[in-house]
Amino acid sequence: MKLKGLGEDALLAALLRGVPGARDVVRGPGDDCAVIGNPRGKTWRLLKTDCVIEGVHFRAGENPAKIGWKALARPVSDIAAMGGRPLHALITLAISPEAELKRALGIYAGLRKCAAKYGIAIVGGETARSPGPMFLSVMLAGEVERHGCVFRSGGKPGDRLFVTGRLGGSLAGRHLSFEPRVEEGRWLARQFHIHAMMDLSDGLAADLPRMARASGCGFRIEEGALPLHARCTVKQGLSDGEDYELLFALAPRDAERLRILWPRKFPGLALTGIGELTGDAAAAARGRKNGSLHGYDHFA
Amino acid sequence: MKLKGLGEDALLAALLRGVPGARDVVRGPGDDCAVIGNPRGKTWRLLKTDCVIEGVHFRAGENPAKIGWKALARPVSDIAAMGGRPLHALITLAISPEAELKRALGIYAGLRKCAAKYGIAIVGGETARSPGPMFLSVMLAGEVERHGCVFRSGGKPGDRLFVTGRLGGSLAGRHLSFEPRVEEGRWLARQFHIHAMMDLSDGLAADLPRMARASGCGFRIEEGALPLHARCTVKQGLSDGEDYELLFALAPRDAERLRILWPRKFPGLALTGIGELTGDAAAAARGRKNGSLHGYDHFA
Repeated sequence: MKLKGLGEDALLAALLRGVPGARDVVRGPGDDCAVIGNPRGKTWRLLKTDCVIEGVHFRAGENPAKIGWKALARPVSDIAAMGGRPLHALITLAISPEAELKRALGIYAGLRKCAAKYGIAIVGGETARSPGPMFLSVMLAGEVERHGCVFRSGGKPGDRLFVTGRLGGSLAGRHLSFEPRVEEGRWLARQFHIHAMMDLSDGLAADLPRMARASGCGFRIEEGALPLHARCTVKQGLSDGEDYELLFALAPRDAERLRILWPRKFPGLALTGIGELTGDAAAAARGRKNGSLHGYDHFA
Repeated sequence: MKLKGLGEDALLAALLRGVPGARDVVRGPGDDCAVIGNPRGKTWRLLKTDCVIEGVHFRAGENPAKIGWKALARPVSDIAAMGGRPLHALITLAISPEAELKRALGIYAGLRKCAAKYGIAIVGGETARSPGPMFLSVMLAGEVERHGCVFRSGGKPGDRLFVTGRLGGSLAGRHLSFEPRVEEGRWLARQFHIHAMMDLSDGLAADLPRMARASGCGFRIEEGALPLHARCTVKQGLSDGEDYELLFALAPRDAERLRILWPRKFPGLALTGIGELTGDAAAAARGRKNGSLHGYDHFA
């Protein structure tokens, strides 16, 4: 059986079946980050690894600084989605020996720019020879207050669903220059009882069913309400992916308060109610199959 | 300027020049692992990332379980070299969609076997489509007692140099099935005042000068004393690389005690005095250039 056609979620589920757990693992595979710590500790550690590959996540001729930015900003976005803050990064760069030093330095300029903006220390690096495309992998460690840690799995039927920013059309350039919503994620997790949160990397159509499934819920979205980037269709907003906006769920009562406070705190960033979680968990599974909802999948 | 010919150490130094530091960074780039924690804390956290690439670190047709073992055992060896113990791993697998599921499962079987042996929890995984060779990257977090943490940089002139096990000829198969020296590293760090330690990944000829430079020392080795694998020449023992044995330095007085205690504790594993650190720091630099001493370098 080939990986092609299996789907990323099914592949990961097969690979991770029966991997050993251990003490201090609050959350293993399946959320935006792994969460490590004493279940009753004041703070928990977050671990995330993420890679970008030439020809998949960026084009060969792309501006190296933008590649570096993207490589680090992606896992930062995952830490933001837990309500956490990023702290320490290690970089693995596999690159052709025929590449110019200038190119490697450019990539690190982008990594450094992102690290400086989000207060991250780059504490290690490895370089290796790649006989094929360039491969850039980032290991990111962060932390989160236990009471401010938000999983994908806490959503409840009736919860209102929100997304930050606008969706769709990321390939026009935003996928290389987006700003992870760290401050927004931390503010949300502190000020509200956010039941579930994740970042939108594969598109709402792929990611929302994941959050609903993790929460044992279904969902209903109002396609007309989706906050789209200029000149994007609903289909693009659902399926393009690489939005790196936050998707989250909270109780209707909190939603009202949020609608009032958000524009005061983040006047430059849209926040949009797009629907709700429902009690019909089977809908999440159906959503994957009805053709109208599908996001990016490496192995679809 | 092309990366080819620059050398891995020079490349990394150029890339990491001026990267932002931060609080809680005990040791940033340049040692076997990054070390994170309160300088006065009881324990420190260790972070390491390491990758293996098809066509560089293993052949395309290689047994998948052996590839998985190697991918995890390599960073375990780095944690052993600090005197630490490995705890939590995250895996990034970039693989062709044309690959068989069986192959991906085989790789994870090897990862799991290594994880089980060394008490590691696999807490996250990511899969991505590779348009080229397979790429397998491991992020590994561990911990070490502050008083048992050994850096590369603490060596002193006159220190005796030792290596565990035997060197050379790893490409015959050992590079895929070696056993990281975790128990040995922890015992050494607890029982002795080890001044400097690292694991031998690129060959003694590349790695010893690194340790000597980090310690501000020179070195002298007795080539006739090198513990070689059967049918290996001195040159192979120095330069083949991928031995994943421990190299360490300690005071002559401690060396005598070590020679007595080691065979009682680890009767099945050779321990060999191979020379000493000297006060002639310039010798480490000369060693890199005189042609007799060179190990594996991705960008040499």
